[in-house]
Amino acid sequence: MAAKKPKNNGVVEKKLIGIADIVIGAAQRSQDPALAIPVRSLANVNFNAKRGIIEMGKRKQARTFFNVGMAKKFMQTVMVADALAELQRANLTTSLREIYYRTKHTIKNSNENTFDDQNESDPLIEDLEVTLEALREELHVRAENRGTVVGPMTIVDDGDRVDCTKLGNGGYSVPSIVEPEYIQIAKCSADFVLLVEKGTQWNRLSEDKFWRRYNCILLTGNGQPPRGVRRLARRLHEDYKLPVYVLVDNDPWGYYIYSVIKQGSINLAFESERMAIPKAKFIGFSSADPERYGLPRNVGIKLNDKDINRAKELMKYKWFQKKEWQNEIKGMLTSGLKFELDALANKDFQYLTNTYLPRKLKDKDWLD
Amino acid sequence: MAAKKPKNNGVVEKKLIGIADIVIGAAQRSQDPALAIPVRSLANVNFNAKRGIIEMGKRKQARTFFNVGMAKKFMQTVMVADALAELQRANLTTSLREIYYRTKHTIKNSNENTFDDQNESDPLIEDLEVTLEALREELHVRAENRGTVVGPMTIVDDGDRVDCTKLGNGGYSVPSIVEPEYIQIAKCSADFVLLVEKGTQWNRLSEDKFWRRYNCILLTGNGQPPRGVRRLARRLHEDYKLPVYVLVDNDPWGYYIYSVIKQGSINLAFESERMAIPKAKFIGFSSADPERYGLPRNVGIKLNDKDINRAKELMKYKWFQKKEWQNEIKGMLTSGLKFELDALANKDFQYLTNTYLPRKLKDKDWLD
Repeated sequence: MAAKKPKNNGVVEKKLIGIADIVIGAAQRSQDPALAIPVRSLANVNFNAKRGIIEMGKRKQARTFFNVGMAKKFMQTVMVADALAELQRANLTTSLREIYYRTKHTIKNSNENTFDDQNESDPLIEDLEVTLEALREELHVRAENRGTVVGPMTIVDDGDRVDCTKLGNGGYSVPSIVEPEYIQIAKCSADFVLLVEKGTQWNRLSEDKFWRRYNCILLTGNGQPPRGVRRLARRLHEDYKLPVYVLVDNDPWGYYIYSVIKQGSINLAFESERMAIPKAKFIGFSSADPERYGLPRNVGIKLNDKDINRAKELMKYKWFQKKEWQNEIKGMLTSGLKFELDALANKDFQYLTNTYLPRKLKDKDWLD
Repeated sequence: MAAKKPKNNGVVEKKLIGIADIVIGAAQRSQDPALAIPVRSLANVNFNAKRGIIEMGKRKQARTFFNVGMAKKFMQTVMVADALAELQRANLTTSLREIYYRTKHTIKNSNENTFDDQNESDPLIEDLEVTLEALREELHVRAENRGTVVGPMTIVDDGDRVDCTKLGNGGYSVPSIVEPEYIQIAKCSADFVLLVEKGTQWNRLSEDKFWRRYNCILLTGNGQPPRGVRRLARRLHEDYKLPVYVLVDNDPWGYYIYSVIKQGSINLAFESERMAIPKAKFIGFSSADPERYGLPRNVGIKLNDKDINRAKELMKYKWFQKKEWQNEIKGMLTSGLKFELDALANKDFQYLTNTYLPRKLKDKDWLD
């Protein structure tokens, strides 16, 4: 059955086999095999203001085999690379958890397991991502589907042409891996991408066929968008030059979701390169909106200590230093309130579709 | 835009208006308006062994207006009914949270809010469900999309015909409301429904086109299946007479997920009537499977106290009294281990598709 799939070009497989070659090469020269693994710590992460993304620095660390403290981890890294190479050869995808189970066994004549916990295998997959400069998706490691899309584009998924204007209100379930190897965007005539934080607002807009009236791609990740949703938005932005507008709740977590879509995240800085969308715009919900759209104070939610501390933290981030952003966050702190997008229903059930977003788009009322 | 949609027949709207009629009628007769609301407590829930579902008893409670303890709740109930009637008139759907925001305001010349918290409005929606005998979905209250489906069926969603064999590996994103008013199943040639607990196993089976080889509907709810997924399975079971096989992790939570699909849940007993699938079969992962399929003990996970207590609780439930089920649960307790479906990857990445499920189906190895 795998035969029907577009065969990948073998580049990633060769990179993975390269790990084994290092071991063999060192053995032949009677040397200690060593991997040079980029350091994934805060100290090796910078915000590149010019590019507008969070990126990794150049520091690397050697992982060697003839070292009591590293031998097990070295062996585990090679085992994970081997499992990932198996995926490439068979042209299969799998989950982090299944990689763990696949590589777990008890070492012969011992009670020692190769892995005791998934916490041991997950970081090794990240190590391999950065070492081989291959996204997790290119290593064929996926999560479950999360997120939904409708709008004027046709994608090709495993040979099927899926016209995303013909999927009713339900839409296409966005897979975890949307790399060109798996998902081709055959056609897209949209003017922009609207990436909505919450599924329920996405449903409102889908039911109202907002995407048709405003000729846009309507996308959600049901909360913090998963990698598949971010990659899809990025591909539409890059390949089709579509602006990306992000619609989130008016709280520190909404700001953060926006910033991850835009600059990438600190924890996974190495992925910004192909996930971040530095030109993404924040279309709301802004601290200025409750007044502008006449929302009563009683549908706001009082900020708690956690909110206040988080907002103050955000104000210190390099990528929130623009005056407009400082004012935006200060506005929330001054009012002492946060607002959910859901609160727009206080006006009427279709306020988001018929008033809020149309006015936002008309006034170009967004933050960069 | 709503004009395109099949207009509902007004039955639910009439039921909702009936709530207002009670108030008006009582006022005209200078009486205390009262609603008779079925009691949603454990004491009013029974397992009907003959029908194989958990159902509500007949006990009702009066909610009256001229009663200091009930006046606010009565007023709130009428307000929620009014918002729900608005949804019916406009032919819109919305979320529980938006109902809360829609009905929230400060009462004139006071500091009193109609609602202070969503915890006040949610139970009233359930009260109206049982009082009016209308499922939440018929009241047009939805959650976000959760769950995915592929397989040989064509659904009609808002006028679009969606052929679920032509959606690649990604699939159709299952909406929260799949009532015939919204989703019509135009065609279905499948032999059975396979309802998979976890999204990652669903992805395995979708990628392997398992549904094509075994002519089935492949459905997941990404964990405990949401109402939309349960209703879709139930409709396929009822309208197309398809057997439903449930594939869950081998742990007490997996058993419970199966039992909710089959008999319904204690908390939402009134929904079993149209959500439960009493003939649903448990196809695995069974306590007997690790040995049968040669899984090593080290991919099992030691039961913790919570698991053990929960398993013992399940053994006491009336719907787990069959000898086979007692043995199944005892098997887990005796081994002291639980197994995730993901553990099958220990054999090989496609073991689930190529060995486990084919053998299960061939041997008719399931529990009822």
